[in-house]
Amino acid sequence: MAAATLNVTVIGGGLIGASWVALFLAHGHRVCVHDVAPDVAERVRSELRRIQPTMAQLGMPISPQTSNLTFEADLGRSVATADVVQECGPERLAFKQTLWARVEVHCKADALLLSSSSGITASMQARKMRTPHRMLVGHPFNPPHLIPLVEVVPGRKTSPAAVQRARDFYLALGKQAIVLNKEIPGFVANRIQAAVIRESVSLVRQGVVSVQDLDVAVQSSLGLRWATGGPFLSAHLGGGAGGIQAFWRQFAGGLQLLWLHMRLRPVLLTTRTQADIANDVLKQHGNQSIDQLASLRDQQQIALLNALQASQAHHTPNAPTP
Amino acid sequence: MAAATLNVTVIGGGLIGASWVALFLAHGHRVCVHDVAPDVAERVRSELRRIQPTMAQLGMPISPQTSNLTFEADLGRSVATADVVQECGPERLAFKQTLWARVEVHCKADALLLSSSSGITASMQARKMRTPHRMLVGHPFNPPHLIPLVEVVPGRKTSPAAVQRARDFYLALGKQAIVLNKEIPGFVANRIQAAVIRESVSLVRQGVVSVQDLDVAVQSSLGLRWATGGPFLSAHLGGGAGGIQAFWRQFAGGLQLLWLHMRLRPVLLTTRTQADIANDVLKQHGNQSIDQLASLRDQQQIALLNALQASQAHHTPNAPTP
Repeated sequence: MAAATLNVTVIGGGLIGASWVALFLAHGHRVCVHDVAPDVAERVRSELRRIQPTMAQLGMPISPQTSNLTFEADLGRSVATADVVQECGPERLAFKQTLWARVEVHCKADALLLSSSSGITASMQARKMRTPHRMLVGHPFNPPHLIPLVEVVPGRKTSPAAVQRARDFYLALGKQAIVLNKEIPGFVANRIQAAVIRESVSLVRQGVVSVQDLDVAVQSSLGLRWATGGPFLSAHLGGGAGGIQAFWRQFAGGLQLLWLHMRLRPVLLTTRTQADIANDVLKQHGNQSIDQLASLRDQQQIALLNALQASQAHHTPNAPTP
Repeated sequence: MAAATLNVTVIGGGLIGASWVALFLAHGHRVCVHDVAPDVAERVRSELRRIQPTMAQLGMPISPQTSNLTFEADLGRSVATADVVQECGPERLAFKQTLWARVEVHCKADALLLSSSSGITASMQARKMRTPHRMLVGHPFNPPHLIPLVEVVPGRKTSPAAVQRARDFYLALGKQAIVLNKEIPGFVANRIQAAVIRESVSLVRQGVVSVQDLDVAVQSSLGLRWATGGPFLSAHLGGGAGGIQAFWRQFAGGLQLLWLHMRLRPVLLTTRTQADIANDVLKQHGNQSIDQLASLRDQQQIALLNALQASQAHHTPNAPTP
């Protein structure tokens, strides 16, 4: 955690940008925000004030008025002294391609260039760059100040050194940074999420279960399980004393059959399906505002993160159990 | 929680059976275990001693030597005074069909008959019964004393009254009981889990990500998210101020494309794939015993459950936020 203080430029002062700003400030970096919106400073500071209590609960107090936070409407000047650039602009290919071609001209030769994009690969973003070796995706799971995962996704021309620097940068921020070996639509977490939404929509549309009960089922079983270990570790523990090998012996055949069963039936997200599910969601949650629901979720996630940390601190994994 | 004391017969004294026993005892029920194994009393009591600390941490202290726990090797006598039977026997169709045909002869006319089966539907299990209206599946997520979910899955001949009684029985035990409207292979939670394992295996076999990093990705993003709300509530909050409707507008097209992408490529759980993944899991976790890993997971799940409960207690969902 005692990493060097860096100059970090955040491009785009929206919600993701402001969330990154909070995290960077909490770790002592000097942050410059570039955004052409005239009220960007007020909007970012207002968002920082909103998430300030969350940051405090996570043990990362911040001050929205710190001199470590500056704003610069000129792109060239905003990146001139940057060690790291974290881009959080609109998800439009042309915007990002033009942006990076301009950034590389004005920034230091050894600046690391990172995009928060969830969908546009580094290979595509860097097409107009002369120095694509130092550009890659660092995709956070929303919101970055709270959820630990960052997916580091190099493009075809990204150098191994840049990948290593990106990973180290995020690890020093306390993130769980994983490196993908190939670019693929949706990266990892959003593909897993898409697979879950697919089967969820399918079960609801087949009339097996209500929207409400589907949510209860996932929250009160799999969510709890995966918050303490991913699918492969869970399989290892699901096999009993025989571990993952026993799990495969017992369940591989059944899994393969379920996969065939799922693949037979296409799942279509028609406007009718979207509307019906939206109605059910609003029937269940419409009496609370999104702000109220999101604030409850954030409180619960903070409680979970702190509980996991405390539980891990009390556990010495390599000591034999009595 | 101040529900009436019931006579509950647990058929099968394995791990699932013993876990149910702990939960039933903790809620004041009189429990009779039927199992033909001669050492069943010792095995069940030993398992109860093992999970006793967990039960205490969950606020449900139990005593393995209570007079509320009896054992009966004769099936007929074991169910004679039962209000509820919870079957936890082997997952073999012939076994369950024969069992229920015998149980219904010896039990009270109003006894509720529940199977813990994860895969054999009530419609199939009840084929040889004269009173199938009172038989259905109450499938727990393992282990039942710890994980809240129970899937209540009626067969074609189960009466609505029996479904209601089963649901009420589990709710009074503090479980999250959902009722499925149709029997489907894998029910809900195991189908969602299968969808996640499918995409996880696919990503690993395509060389996108390592087994270890896949686990890190799910644990440090989606697991945390789904532990606080299922996929549909998460979509509602993922749409920002516009809720689920904005979520669909923004992501429905991308989801549909990802689903097509996933469906194009069959995922095969060959013995080679199984072995490679098992090797990677053991490389990562093989230095700890399954017992150590499972105990850490259980400790973390208890911490999460208690944290969620505390966080919910501090929150009054319907009060306006200041």
